[in-house]
Formats: sequence, C-alpha cells, structure tokens
Amino acid sequence: MSDTKTQNWRSKLHDIIYEADTRAGKAFDVILLIAIIASIILVMLESIKSFDEKYHTFLNISEWVITILFSVEYITRIITVKKPFKYIFSFYGIIDLLSTIPKYISLLFGGVHALAALRALRLLRVFRILKLARYLGASNLLVSALKASRAKISVFLFAVLILCIICGTVMYLIEGEESGFTSIPVSVYWCIVTLTTVGFGDIAPVTPLGQFIAALIMILGYGIIAVPTGIVSAEYTALGKKDKNPQIPPIPLNSQSCENCLAEDHRDGAEYCYNCGEKLHF
Amino acid sequence: MSDTKTQNWRSKLHDIIYEADTRAGKAFDVILLIAIIASIILVMLESIKSFDEKYHTFLNISEWVITILFSVEYITRIITVKKPFKYIFSFYGIIDLLSTIPKYISLLFGGVHALAALRALRLLRVFRILKLARYLGASNLLVSALKASRAKISVFLFAVLILCIICGTVMYLIEGEESGFTSIPVSVYWCIVTLTTVGFGDIAPVTPLGQFIAALIMILGYGIIAVPTGIVSAEYTALGKKDKNPQIPPIPLNSQSCENCLAEDHRDGAEYCYNCGEKLHF
Amino acid sequence: MSDTKTQNWRSKLHDIIYEADTRAGKAFDVILLIAIIASIILVMLESIKSFDEKYHTFLNISEWVITILFSVEYITRIITVKKPFKYIFSFYGIIDLLSTIPKYISLLFGGVHALAALRALRLLRVFRILKLARYLGASNLLVSALKASRAKISVFLFAVLILCIICGTVMYLIEGEESGFTSIPVSVYWCIVTLTTVGFGDIAPVTPLGQFIAALIMILGYGIIAVPTGIVSAEYTALGKKDKNPQIPPIPLNSQSCENCLAEDHRDGAEYCYNCGEKLHF
Amino acid sequence: MSDTKTQNWRSKLHDIIYEADTRAGKAFDVILLIAIIASIILVMLESIKSFDEKYHTFLNISEWVITILFSVEYITRIITVKKPFKYIFSFYGIIDLLSTIPKYISLLFGGVHALAALRALRLLRVFRILKLARYLGASNLLVSALKASRAKISVFLFAVLILCIICGTVMYLIEGEESGFTSIPVSVYWCIVTLTTVGFGDIAPVTPLGQFIAALIMILGYGIIAVPTGIVSAEYTALGKKDKNPQIPPIPLNSQSCENCLAEDHRDGAEYCYNCGEKLHF
Repeated sequence: MSDTKTQNWRSKLHDIIYEADTRAGKAFDVILLIAIIASIILVMLESIKSFDEKYHTFLNISEWVITILFSVEYITRIITVKKPFKYIFSFYGIIDLLSTIPKYISLLFGGVHALAALRALRLLRVFRILKLARYLGASNLLVSALKASRAKISVFLFAVLILCIICGTVMYLIEGEESGFTSIPVSVYWCIVTLTTVGFGDIAPVTPLGQFIAALIMILGYGIIAVPTGIVSAEYTALGKKDKNPQIPPIPLNSQSCENCLAEDHRDGAEYCYNCGEKLHF
Repeated sequence: MSDTKTQNWRSKLHDIIYEADTRAGKAFDVILLIAIIASIILVMLESIKSFDEKYHTFLNISEWVITILFSVEYITRIITVKKPFKYIFSFYGIIDLLSTIPKYISLLFGGVHALAALRALRLLRVFRILKLARYLGASNLLVSALKASRAKISVFLFAVLILCIICGTVMYLIEGEESGFTSIPVSVYWCIVTLTTVGFGDIAPVTPLGQFIAALIMILGYGIIAVPTGIVSAEYTALGKKDKNPQIPPIPLNSQSCENCLAEDHRDGAEYCYNCGEKLHF
Repeated sequence: MSDTKTQNWRSKLHDIIYEADTRAGKAFDVILLIAIIASIILVMLESIKSFDEKYHTFLNISEWVITILFSVEYITRIITVKKPFKYIFSFYGIIDLLSTIPKYISLLFGGVHALAALRALRLLRVFRILKLARYLGASNLLVSALKASRAKISVFLFAVLILCIICGTVMYLIEGEESGFTSIPVSVYWCIVTLTTVGFGDIAPVTPLGQFIAALIMILGYGIIAVPTGIVSAEYTALGKKDKNPQIPPIPLNSQSCENCLAEDHRDGAEYCYNCGEKLHF
Repeated sequence: MSDTKTQNWRSKLHDIIYEADTRAGKAFDVILLIAIIASIILVMLESIKSFDEKYHTFLNISEWVITILFSVEYITRIITVKKPFKYIFSFYGIIDLLSTIPKYISLLFGGVHALAALRALRLLRVFRILKLARYLGASNLLVSALKASRAKISVFLFAVLILCIICGTVMYLIEGEESGFTSIPVSVYWCIVTLTTVGFGDIAPVTPLGQFIAALIMILGYGIIAVPTGIVSAEYTALGKKDKNPQIPPIPLNSQSCENCLAEDHRDGAEYCYNCGEKLHF
C-alpha cells in the first residue's frame, strides 16, 4: 500500500517536472525558467570585475542558492524517472549535471567556475517550455526548413570554405606580413571575415593589388550571400504550401513525457507510450 | 443656436486636424509635417556644438516658435475631440505632449531639452498622412507580412540570442581580458556584433583558437541570415497571392476620424462610426 | 541633288552613331565603350599622386586625345540628329557635354578637371550597347521588378530612417561625446552604419547601456534586412511567372533610334516612329 | 599476351584512380582527400613563422613525402589514361602539376614554394568524390540555379560597379586626402567596402557631407542587396518546381570515367562512352 503511495507521489512529481499540462507543471516550468535566467545573469555579473569586487559576498551566496536549487531539481529528476540512466546520459541530463557541479568543484580547486557558463545551454529548455504556446508550429516549421536545406547549405558552406582558403593564400602572397597578413591561417581568417561581410578592420589590405582582390572578394561575397537565402526561402515556401493543404490533418500533441523512456510528443488521448508501450497517466 | 455654431466650428476644426479628405485638412497635414521635420532639424543643429555657439539666439527663438505652434495644435486637438482623455492617453497624444513640454520645463530646470528628441517619434504621423497616397497598400501589406511572421522571427531571434550567450561565454574563456573581452556581457555584445555581420572591430580576437571560433561564428551568421529572409519572403509571397485573387473586393477606405472615439479606417460612404455609432460628417 | 547626298550622308552617320543593327554601328559602339573606359582609367590614374608625378606628360596628352575624340563625337551627334536641342537637353546629351568640357575649362582656370569624373556616368551607355546581347531580357526584368517594388521599398527605407533618427538620438543621450557620439547627426550616421550591418568601427559605444542598445539595433537590423529581400523576391517571382506564361507574345524590338525625336525600342519591321510618325530607315 | 595483361593492369588502375564505384576506387579517393588536406595544412603551418622555426625539419620531410606521393599519382594518372595529353592539359591536370612541382623547383631556386598554395585548388576534387553521396543532387541544383541567374547577376554586379565608380569619385572630391581617400581607385575601393556592407573602417568619412553621402550609399546597399537574393531565390524556386514534377524521370548516373576521353556522368548500365564511343568496363 505504501508502495502505491510512493508510486503516486513519484508519478505526480514526474508530471510536474517533466510535463506542462497540469497547473503545477506549468508553474514549475516558469520557476525553472526564471532560475536559469537568474543563474546566467549571476555568471555574467561575476565576470565583470568592478561589480564582483563590490558585491562578492552577495554573488557568492546567490550562486550557492541557485546551485542547491539545481541540485535538488537534478536529484528529483533522477528519482522520479523509471530509467534514471536514460535521463543521466541524455543531452539535457548531461547539461543539467555540468551546470550544477562547477560550484562544488570550486570548493576543492579554484577558478573552475568558468564551467558554470554551460548553464547557458540550459536555456534550450525554453524551447520545450514554449512548445506549449503558439510558437510550437513556428519553431517546428523553421527546424523542418533548415533540415530540408541542410545538405544544400553544407555544400554551399564547403564551397565558401575552399574559396576562402584559395583567396586567403593569394592575399598572403600579395600583402605580406607588414599589412597584418602574417600567415596563411590568418589570411584565411581575414578572408572569412571579408566574405561574410563582417569586416572587423583589424587586418586590412594596403597594397593596390591587395585592395583590388579584396574588392573582388567582397563583390563575390555580396553576390553569393543570395545562395543560402534562396535555398531556405524556396524550402520554406515549399514546406509552407504543404502545411496549408494538408492531406492528413495535423495530430494534436501534448507535453506528456513517458516515465519509462522519456519519449515526448505523444498525441492527445494516447494511453500508452508509442515508443516503449508504458502506460501514460494524466 | 450659438451652441450649434460652436458645434459647427469645432466640427470643422476636427475635420481639418484629424482628417485629410478636405483641402484644408490636406494643407494642415503638410504644414504639420514640415513643422515636425523643422523641429527635428533644430534639435539636431542644437546638438552640434560649433553650430550652437554661433547661432544660439536664432536656434532658441526658432525652438520657441515651434514649441508654441505645437502647443496650440495640442490644445486644439483636445478641444475639438469629444472625448479628450481618449486622445490625451492615446499613443499619439502622449508623444505630442512629451515633444512639446521639454522647452517649458527647461525654463525651470536646465538641460532637459534632450527630451525634445522625442519629437522624432512624431515623424510616425507621416505614415498616417502618406496613407492618402498610393503608399497605403504597400505599407499595409508590409505590416501584414511582418505581423504574420512575427512568431517565427521571435523564435529565430531567441535562438540567435541563446547562441550569442553560449558563444560569447566561450570566447570570454578563450580570449581573456587582454584582447578586449573583459567580461561575459562584453563578449556576448561582441558575439552579436559578429553574428549580425556588423563587425565594428573595436574588439577582435587575437589568439589562433579565438580567430578559429570567430570564423565559425561568422560562417554560421552568414548561413542563418537566410532564415528570417526566407520567412518574410514566403509570408510576403503568400500574402501577395491572396491580395491578387481576392474573393471579396477590397473596401475603399477614407481618412475620416470619429469625433467621439478617434477610430479610423471608415469605409467610403459610411454614415456612422463602426466602433461607437457616432454620426460621421463630411 | 547634293542635298539628298548630304541627307544620305547624315542619315548613314546617324545609323552608325545612334543605332547598333549595322556592322559599322556595332563597331562604333565597341570603340566608344573602349574610349569611355580608357577615359575613366585616365582620370583614376591622374588622381594617384605618385603616378601623376611620374607620367604627367603622358597623362596630359592622353587626356587631350580623349577629349578631342569626345568633342568630335558630341558635335557629330548634334549634326546628325534632326532636332539637335532634343539631344542636347536629354540626359545623355548633358552627360556627354559635361564629360567633355572640363579639359577646355582647365585651360582658362586650373583644377576643374575633377568634373571629368562625370565621365563615369557615360558608362551607363553600356546598358544601351549591351541591350543588343542576351542581357536585354535580364536587365529589363530586373528594372521591372525594382519599379514594381519601388513604393514598398520607399516605405521600408523611410521607416528605417525614422528608426535611425530615434535610435541615434537615444545613443547620443546615453553615450555622450567621449565615445565619439559628438552630435545627433553623427549619432544618426552611426546608427545607419550599424543598422545596415556595415559597422566601420570609427565610432563604437563604450558604456554598458550603449552596448546593450547597440546590440538591440543590430539584431533589429539583422531581422529587418529580410524585408526588402522578401519584397523584391516576391515581385521578381510574380514577374517571372507572367514572363513565362505570356498571353501576348513579346514583341521583338531592335536598336533603331528615331532621327527626329530620338525615341527607341521600335518593333522589328516598323516603318514609322511610334512616337512622332517620322520615317525610319534600315 | 603480356600486352593484354598490361592492358588489364592499366585498366584496373584507371578504375581505381579515376572512378569510385569499386571498393578500391573509393578507398583511393578517401586517401587522396586526406593527402590533399594534409598538404594544405602543411603549407599553412609552414607560413606561421614561430611554428616553422621550431619544426622546420619535420615540415620539410613531410613536404617531401607529400610531394613524392603526388608525383607518383600524377605519373600514374598519365600512364593509365589512353590520351595522356587530354589529361595533362585538362583543368585538373594543370592543377595537379602545379601543386606538385614547386618543391622540386625550390631545390634549384629558393622561395618558390609559395606556389604550393595552389594545392588548395585540388580541394575542388572533393566535389567529384562527394558526388557519390547524396550531396550530388543538392550540388547540381545549386549550380543550375547559379547558371540560370548568371546573366541577371552579371547585369546587377555591373550596375553596382558603375555605381561604385561614380560614388567613389564623388567621395574623393568631398573628403580629400586627409580622411584617407587618397585617390579615386582607393575611393572606389572604399565604396565597394561600404556598399557590400563589409565596412573595414580603415578608411572612414569625417566631413559631415561625406558622412551624409556615406549614409545614402549604405542605405542604398542595404536596399539593393535584396536584388541578387531575389533573383537566385526565384530561379531556385522555379528549378525546384521543375525538379519535383519531372516529365522525364532523372537518369541514374555513376562515377565511370572514359579511359579515352575522360568524359564523366555516364548513365548506369551504359556500355559505351556517349562522347567518343570507347568501350566502358566495370
């Protein structure tokens, strides 16, 4: 009997932490989001020396509060899931661990807290949380368009890279070391900076021939920036059309997460996990 | 009888100030536009020190002329509308007030005239005035396309922001303070400058590893700039198509503004306000 | 009889100079193009001090050769056309004159030869000459797409300008004169440099708040660069479709130019000018 | 008999080196790819002075190993093909030679090894090797879209160039030599840097009029960057549509290369070269 009770208690906690269809689940997600943002702001403030000197104690205490909160969340996540190792070695599991432990390690060694920057990766959870909102569709279509044009964009970026290596080498031979083109890798770096129209200006050609070739590279970059845009644009239009004349109506999904295998995107009203057959509860 | 006269007088002024279908209304709008542009140029000239020293008296007098003109306009707007508070607390009402009072306040305290820069916001009225012209359609379609792709662009910009926070932190750890990456916020700022292909060059990586990662960020930025373009492009094409095969012919609108509730975009020939039922006059 | 001869002689010269359907006409166009490019290169070389000092005599003589050639061409154009004033006050007529006279004026006064830079405008003739080639279609469709989206792009650029004025003023108030934001016009200039993702870096924000707002401006600029692209892309697709399913087959045009009114784009086989009724000859 | 044996041996080697359908052919391609990348990295490392000083002997030996490998490959390619001169004077033949000989020449003269940078061109072979993979389709469509829009983009880039010459000359006249606009070519270079939104900042306008015109150029550049994107986007969409509703199913190709004329892209199952009638073997 007590076992069932534990079961229920664990099951409820699982719903709150992993899902967002209940009121408590939504509240948990929002609080988690605020904690993540607060933790990132803390790391940022800590990196500003003048600020750190003034409010060191305050920052340190806040860091510990956040770290303990995250630790509690991490342990609860492990407890409430049926196959803890699946969570621990999942993408989010590793990020959760890495963004929690640096503070503990900093007790033994110093200065490892730079790893705390990994917390920024936890922001990716926002997408899961925002999934609930109307952004879901937008985000999915975006990802689909990018996936569909992945091969084409890879070919394009690869061609750009070869172009940069060739142009970079040419510029190195022309400009020489006085202008800042100290080696071929630096030249290639300059070429990428120029072709992508970023143009820092820390290195810039000074010889007439170098400036002429730089101008050619820029006009080329200006012309070929059209290519990835054209690709994504076409894919997006194509996907959008499919989206508007669907043969099969889109299946409404909910934010349920299987207790056993962590699979998501179950359809509304599904009783069993489509992945492992585990019973789902609402 | 005198009451009806006042009514007529107020009604006529309302038509001139708030609408642009009559000759006097058009003339008023053009004069107002010129006054707004003149006032902005004045604030700009005042900010140039060498110019201000030479022509201080001229600038001061012109400022007062413009301020008094705007005050008169503001008061007339309040008088001629039936529900003055609706205007006062509307977007344009607040801007009109804020762009008029700084000069008065500067009599009591000094240096508040920087607020006069808010006058630039009055330029937005231009859109209302240009509505009359053939730009109306263009502007509306543009706004619709942007509205339709708002959710998608938000998701995209949010993803870019997370990317910048992660990359910025990495660059801070690699480059350190000697290269100008003095804190994580500054690093994130640099990352935004780079990813958006602006590339000021006030901060630039100097270590080979930093330059390598910077090159990756740039190529990434070059690749993903295609995403918002693709989104807007697709939305715009979709909207344009709807526009060209309209099931329902577009309703011709005029520039009437309801005296009671300030609602606009009444259809040609409408006798009553679609929003509050107030009688419209021509 | 001699009059008819003169007529014939004038008519033939007209065909050579103004048209490109005959062999002599094509040859003339190519030679003219080479002369224009040579004249531009001369002006460029002259502006390089070290080069000018070495080869001053050579440059001066070449300049005179080109100038005399252009003068002869200009006079012939006036003689061979029936209504000379129409040519003289046409766009090309004015450019032809302005790119020829500076050298003569420099005999009386010094240093006016900077006007010779106007010769670059003569390069626009290239489009007329290239019209003959397969580029005709491409160039026309391009111009049509730009014309069709003119109103929309104007609205967009105007909105961008207002945004720059507002942001520029805000940055001036935040950054102050130490960072290089010396006046509002300079701030607006910086804002345009940033929003268009050019980013010279001659002026860059140094305060945290300034950098934060600069980051917002950049992300905004990154997002809205999609708008003109989307507009042109949609117009171009629409025009291209019309082009491919034409109800009326495109009329083949030739490079005939009416001797009387200079009208161009006559259809193949036309006997009389569509504009003034003058007889055309082949 | 021995002749047939030689024939077989040559034929087999030909299949390995020029084709990629056999296991040995694939392995050869991968090894060649690794060798090319290694050779490029070697040239890059050599150009870094501090690195070259430390590991000069190691770099020199590695260079010789790579050079000998490439020499062997080059000679084998000549032997195994039926018409060696066709290979020697083909694009890849010349690149292969030029990227191999510099090391030999450096024995006689010094410092010619800069030519080794030409090896980067060998990277283009990657496209042939990757052709086998699913990238084939993507790469072909990309090339087709670029070819289809070549004429239009040429017209566009030409118009941009004329614009840059005109604007550059104007900026030279306005800014003068104090601001870095030392000659018209430099001004044109600056103009290209600005219009393409690269913006190095090594040269930047300082006079108010110069900054005003620079702002106009930037806004123009921001507006017209839409043109090539629109062109490619439209072409790509059009090509993609044709691709999806093909009247004729796409013919499956293999990586066979004719021993006689080096023609590629033979259809699966073809027995004879479509170009010269030579028997193909598998």
